[in-house]
Amino acid sequence: MSKGTVGFVGLGSMGGAMARNLAMAGFKVLAWNRTTRPGALEQAGLIGAATPAEAARNGIVVSMVADDSALQAVTHGDDGILAGLPQDGLHICMSTVGVQISAALAQVHRGAGRRYLAAPVFGRPDAAAAAKLWIVAAGEAADYARAEPLFQAMGQGSFHVGAAPEQAGTVKLAGNFLLMAMLEALGEAFALTAKAGIAPRQLLDIVNGALFKSPVYENYGRIAIDRKFDPPGLRLRLGLKDANLMLDAANALQVPMPLASLVRDRMLGAAARGMGELDWSVLTRLIAADAGLA
Amino acid sequence: MSKGTVGFVGLGSMGGAMARNLAMAGFKVLAWNRTTRPGALEQAGLIGAATPAEAARNGIVVSMVADDSALQAVTHGDDGILAGLPQDGLHICMSTVGVQISAALAQVHRGAGRRYLAAPVFGRPDAAAAAKLWIVAAGEAADYARAEPLFQAMGQGSFHVGAAPEQAGTVKLAGNFLLMAMLEALGEAFALTAKAGIAPRQLLDIVNGALFKSPVYENYGRIAIDRKFDPPGLRLRLGLKDANLMLDAANALQVPMPLASLVRDRMLGAAARGMGELDWSVLTRLIAADAGLA
Amino acid sequence: MSKGTVGFVGLGSMGGAMARNLAMAGFKVLAWNRTTRPGALEQAGLIGAATPAEAARNGIVVSMVADDSALQAVTHGDDGILAGLPQDGLHICMSTVGVQISAALAQVHRGAGRRYLAAPVFGRPDAAAAAKLWIVAAGEAADYARAEPLFQAMGQGSFHVGAAPEQAGTVKLAGNFLLMAMLEALGEAFALTAKAGIAPRQLLDIVNGALFKSPVYENYGRIAIDRKFDPPGLRLRLGLKDANLMLDAANALQVPMPLASLVRDRMLGAAARGMGELDWSVLTRLIAADAGLA
Amino acid sequence: MSKGTVGFVGLGSMGGAMARNLAMAGFKVLAWNRTTRPGALEQAGLIGAATPAEAARNGIVVSMVADDSALQAVTHGDDGILAGLPQDGLHICMSTVGVQISAALAQVHRGAGRRYLAAPVFGRPDAAAAAKLWIVAAGEAADYARAEPLFQAMGQGSFHVGAAPEQAGTVKLAGNFLLMAMLEALGEAFALTAKAGIAPRQLLDIVNGALFKSPVYENYGRIAIDRKFDPPGLRLRLGLKDANLMLDAANALQVPMPLASLVRDRMLGAAARGMGELDWSVLTRLIAADAGLA
Repeated sequence: MSKGTVGFVGLGSMGGAMARNLAMAGFKVLAWNRTTRPGALEQAGLIGAATPAEAARNGIVVSMVADDSALQAVTHGDDGILAGLPQDGLHICMSTVGVQISAALAQVHRGAGRRYLAAPVFGRPDAAAAAKLWIVAAGEAADYARAEPLFQAMGQGSFHVGAAPEQAGTVKLAGNFLLMAMLEALGEAFALTAKAGIAPRQLLDIVNGALFKSPVYENYGRIAIDRKFDPPGLRLRLGLKDANLMLDAANALQVPMPLASLVRDRMLGAAARGMGELDWSVLTRLIAADAGLA
Repeated sequence: MSKGTVGFVGLGSMGGAMARNLAMAGFKVLAWNRTTRPGALEQAGLIGAATPAEAARNGIVVSMVADDSALQAVTHGDDGILAGLPQDGLHICMSTVGVQISAALAQVHRGAGRRYLAAPVFGRPDAAAAAKLWIVAAGEAADYARAEPLFQAMGQGSFHVGAAPEQAGTVKLAGNFLLMAMLEALGEAFALTAKAGIAPRQLLDIVNGALFKSPVYENYGRIAIDRKFDPPGLRLRLGLKDANLMLDAANALQVPMPLASLVRDRMLGAAARGMGELDWSVLTRLIAADAGLA
Repeated sequence: MSKGTVGFVGLGSMGGAMARNLAMAGFKVLAWNRTTRPGALEQAGLIGAATPAEAARNGIVVSMVADDSALQAVTHGDDGILAGLPQDGLHICMSTVGVQISAALAQVHRGAGRRYLAAPVFGRPDAAAAAKLWIVAAGEAADYARAEPLFQAMGQGSFHVGAAPEQAGTVKLAGNFLLMAMLEALGEAFALTAKAGIAPRQLLDIVNGALFKSPVYENYGRIAIDRKFDPPGLRLRLGLKDANLMLDAANALQVPMPLASLVRDRMLGAAARGMGELDWSVLTRLIAADAGLA
Repeated sequence: MSKGTVGFVGLGSMGGAMARNLAMAGFKVLAWNRTTRPGALEQAGLIGAATPAEAARNGIVVSMVADDSALQAVTHGDDGILAGLPQDGLHICMSTVGVQISAALAQVHRGAGRRYLAAPVFGRPDAAAAAKLWIVAAGEAADYARAEPLFQAMGQGSFHVGAAPEQAGTVKLAGNFLLMAMLEALGEAFALTAKAGIAPRQLLDIVNGALFKSPVYENYGRIAIDRKFDPPGLRLRLGLKDANLMLDAANALQVPMPLASLVRDRMLGAAARGMGELDWSVLTRLIAADAGLA
């Protein structure tokens, strides 16, 4: 039984998995991607759309694209989402983008009589594939209610954090920041104890076993210990992009965040040394190098 | 059935609970405290000792005192542990002290034909009372084996991290550092999202529900949100002391730890403003104030 | 004897003084300001222009406006500088603006067959009035040569730092950064010695007398000591704007600048507390407050 | 004509030059050094003393030794300065040492009926040789008055900053901190502008020509630009020692100094990478490396 038709714009490693989960949950998914051949879409249970506008014409469309400029590209213009969405149609933007563009897009949609919900996610491609994303949404309550059936098909839980779409991005960026901060902290702790003759694995067992008991500390700690920065879960240059988006938000809201600055500068140094395509936890290697460790 | 006699020096909120757990587990505990009347000891199932030396005379003694100078005071002198311990007797130091004093005391004991095991703990007084401490020990393997039955009576787990006693302190301080770093990170994230109109409680539910899933984030996050800094779990001035001990260790090992420096300076600022006797998570209030929040 | 006609756009506390100096040096100055009545211009020896375009029509025009958006506004549109400049006409932009807008404007002018020279200045309004500015220029050598007679009328020296206009802004922002860094350093040194019972004035006499021998240390040090943050020389919110422009440039060039981040966060904290309209050296007061000084 | 006899303990690159200047100014100098043959002393116009005690027996003695422990060694014991100084004799300590040892030594001298003046200096060996040191003294006014003739023979100026000897060290360390902060700031500015295609030499000419006008910026800037870190003026490991002494003082006085922490960590990283024996301005090279510059 079909749950109705939804559009989906952006079929990368995240978006592709999310669209397939919508299809498996019973939605007809009218999908568009900049670089995908229509045949590939049919195999995944999706229906090819010729343009973002066409994907949007049934009144509800999800976008999941790489960055601010890609989001602008699929939204505006004759072939864009805004051109295709009918009156009161809903654009659910699930990319992590800056708070300024989020606020601006909300205004543009409202001005055009369309609806806009920001709904960035926590989770890597494997979580997207397993429909285990966590979704942080902001926008009008009615729009959030319309989006919930889609969220249930793509994630394990969703949160409605406020009426202004940019609030969702702020929460997402704050969550990413907490992860970065943990990486910096673990990196410094590993460097200290390594020079004291203690194996990082043992330190992690102790502090996570006795204190944090957190799967995130275990997973990232293990990557740092094994130095498995390739293939990347989240590329350092994208983590750096998020750090900069968050510091922009902090600037706009006048919130000094010295730890965020510290980690941003650390990632910038990693990028300057050519580590931009490695997993962002590679910053732990830089911390070790600063301590003279090989 | 008695498991034998052990000495215990230092019966504060931590040591008192630990000594009682030893007694409840079947040890005869010969206990000494600088300020406690003998009668009070008997009620707790302990046997009063007149001096640290007397507490140590059966060949195994635990010390749990406030700081480096208290440890020096109970160890040295005619009434001290070293004077009381028989040949090959074992001193288990469970206080968190600096790595330099730890190395120095190990050498003094070795030179005198006595044994020294450093065994600082993770856990607050409630964990000590419930015998739920985590114990991080360093010293000779044979000494660790002798101490294990005591550790089982006082904690829920113990780790042997190396042969040099100062290694245990390094691990303990690194664990404390990870907690401080988390406080700074949470404080900055709360300030950012609060100014974006998002309740800290909701942020914590999301990031801990979706990401960290850690009881430590929940507990400290809640203290920060509720601003319940009094009564303190760990006093800020003691957290600051630990931060300084760790930076001393980092200096000696030549490990730059900028995040540790940042948090130390934050705690120093809190102490300068008269917050030294509040819970160390009060640093989140300082972060909020820096952002102009009341 | 007239040295020819030049246009001037933007007659604030800096631009007004600079335009008058051009007039006193013998240039006919065709001036435009968003808010000034023509009569006021005549008194200052300037000739009123109806639009930026009109000011630009003689082939050379200086702009000195508040920020990026004001620069965009006077440059583009039917009444803008670009519309008024003849073929090969030269736009000398003396405002401090971001490196990205600088690069973009250079390209727009080049594409339209016009010339663009970036020439931000060091110096406050009193230096502008006394024709004592230092001018840092970047652009084609031929354009710099055309601008030099104007620079001689407005400043005490000029530098040509490269062919790409955004290079001038980078040097200007780096200079501002060195000043901010000095403020942070002085603030911390004053706080330390004040708590040690040493008067800040004596510290400044010693370190500047024995070490730096710099008028800048003396001037800013005195402002900090006397706490004369009002009226401001440079408003903190403008200093913060420059710090952000520089960190944007550092991001684009992949240069970690932790000290710049530290001072930016310090100024952000000052702005959050309502100090944005005070002199930027007010950050020394914040440093003192962090140490518990009144 | 002799100005009287003074003792001098410690004839390294600094102390040797200072002692010779005392001799050239007409003092009889009774000198002791741990490693110098008596013959070498005579050639320099000095009179050899067998012990620090002997150097001190005429009632006024200067010490200029490497660090805290060397100062302790020459002060205490049967051969030490305290043993040799007559009642009311004056010990002028010109080494840079920690504030704690300074306070402690003052107390010891006072308790023994001797006088103690702390008088650390600004200036490198070439300034010592040229009698161009700046001397920062703290102690009783009467003791400062007794020391002034000696200061005039060794330096170009002296300051009396307070009655408590540790105040002199605080001023000295604050001055050193301002130099380190300048090095960090210059290093970051050079890295930024270098990646923007601007020669560091040109940046220095501009910012020092237009703004700072400071010989210190010129000298250190040139060392950084030429990368002449060997032979060192001040070894990085000694600069690091001073940074740590200052942070200890800041801790004791409860003054957060995040910039001092930043530079300390930077120097610690340099030491960890084996740069401890190079000039401390080598930290600018580390900053460049962090930006991916060769």
